[in-house]
Amino acid sequence: MSGTVYLVGAGPGAADLLTLRAARLLAQADVVLHDALVSADVLALATKAKLYNVGKRANRPSVDQRFICRLLVRLASRGLTVVRLKGGDPNLFGRAGEEIAACRSAGVAVVTVPGVSAGLAAAAALNASLTQRDVSRSVTFVTPAVARGRSDDEHWADAAAAAETAVVYMGAMHAQRIVDALVERGVPPSRPVALLESVSATDQRVVRGVLRETPQLASQLGDGPAIIIIGEAIAEARAQVAAADAA
Amino acid sequence: MSGTVYLVGAGPGAADLLTLRAARLLAQADVVLHDALVSADVLALATKAKLYNVGKRANRPSVDQRFICRLLVRLASRGLTVVRLKGGDPNLFGRAGEEIAACRSAGVAVVTVPGVSAGLAAAAALNASLTQRDVSRSVTFVTPAVARGRSDDEHWADAAAAAETAVVYMGAMHAQRIVDALVERGVPPSRPVALLESVSATDQRVVRGVLRETPQLASQLGDGPAIIIIGEAIAEARAQVAAADAA
Repeated sequence: MSGTVYLVGAGPGAADLLTLRAARLLAQADVVLHDALVSADVLALATKAKLYNVGKRANRPSVDQRFICRLLVRLASRGLTVVRLKGGDPNLFGRAGEEIAACRSAGVAVVTVPGVSAGLAAAAALNASLTQRDVSRSVTFVTPAVARGRSDDEHWADAAAAAETAVVYMGAMHAQRIVDALVERGVPPSRPVALLESVSATDQRVVRGVLRETPQLASQLGDGPAIIIIGEAIAEARAQVAAADAA
Repeated sequence: MSGTVYLVGAGPGAADLLTLRAARLLAQADVVLHDALVSADVLALATKAKLYNVGKRANRPSVDQRFICRLLVRLASRGLTVVRLKGGDPNLFGRAGEEIAACRSAGVAVVTVPGVSAGLAAAAALNASLTQRDVSRSVTFVTPAVARGRSDDEHWADAAAAAETAVVYMGAMHAQRIVDALVERGVPPSRPVALLESVSATDQRVVRGVLRETPQLASQLGDGPAIIIIGEAIAEARAQVAAADAA
């Protein structure tokens, strides 16, 4: 009798931004395979589980994705309740696809539990809507990061430039490349930008400016995970306040 | 002494897809102003609060946005803990911006709590990643819906067509317009599409096909809120399984 693999979004960092469903599954889990970025407070909810850190971090030694897939299948095949805990939401830059496919092809039941993505938590931290009535009806989530050794087509930049608001994941170390690609596609260098490191965690840091300043802003951050938000929408809330105050 | 307004994401529907933070705030709230789409199970968590349904639904009489803003400010000014509960995430098509601005300009403290957006819950329901390594590194969230009486520029379609995966909110009643706008911008009519109604709720419905079939697929749904996902990524997981099975 095979167990089940739950691909669970751990949310952006703060333990209380986990969903009730995720908290319940962690409490029930026999085994938890988690990303490096999942906080100790979240892992503490897995009271009876054996924990495996299978985290991948840029520029550091990482666990092979195929190994993770095999481990998920092997553990579930023993009848265990397995939680694969991923930062943010598993289906947005979480590489859930490969793990779902591995489970399915091995006949192991797999269930995805959505989470609060870091980009949405970043908007909440700014107290700024990514969409604004009459200002922004499109938000694009992109990443310029690619697998090691692959050539890059910058197609992500077409999508980011076409949207009114762009949310960039894993972009801080590509800041100049982001500016160049967007400006080349007609995005004004003066468009408002905010960079948020370790969103929702106690050591969250926020820096703001305009698009052309992104590299200098990125250099003010540490090496925690960062989200970059680009768009008039994040300045709009402040402008609305100013207008309301003046009225 | 003024109270605080919490703009809280209620998640996609299922009560256990609320965050722990949202559940705690609901339990503490003196007053809850909620959208029409927030489920009774979620509202039951607000054990001591007075509830106001201020929901807006397309093509139905709705509460004026300015009235909601004034009510938030008035209640908080009395020193009450006010939760403004919105379906999904407040900063993604939730009109949080106007309410944040109203609170700020009145000097009322306002805090945003992110939630699981319906689009991410839709991907989880499909067990399909919106991004796929080497297939999709851009996801655009758009809505073709506009305020009554406004002319429409279809800029949302530029952003949706430029992304590898598009997630359309409030689009089911604009299905033919979506197909026309995307195909005109070069999106293949054969691109995989899925429509999900009442995502994560007990009456969730899912229909699948290709882009050109979207109007017929939409006509199979009821009048619950619907998400449309367009992209190869949602077919990719199945293809990967097929490939793994064949190997």
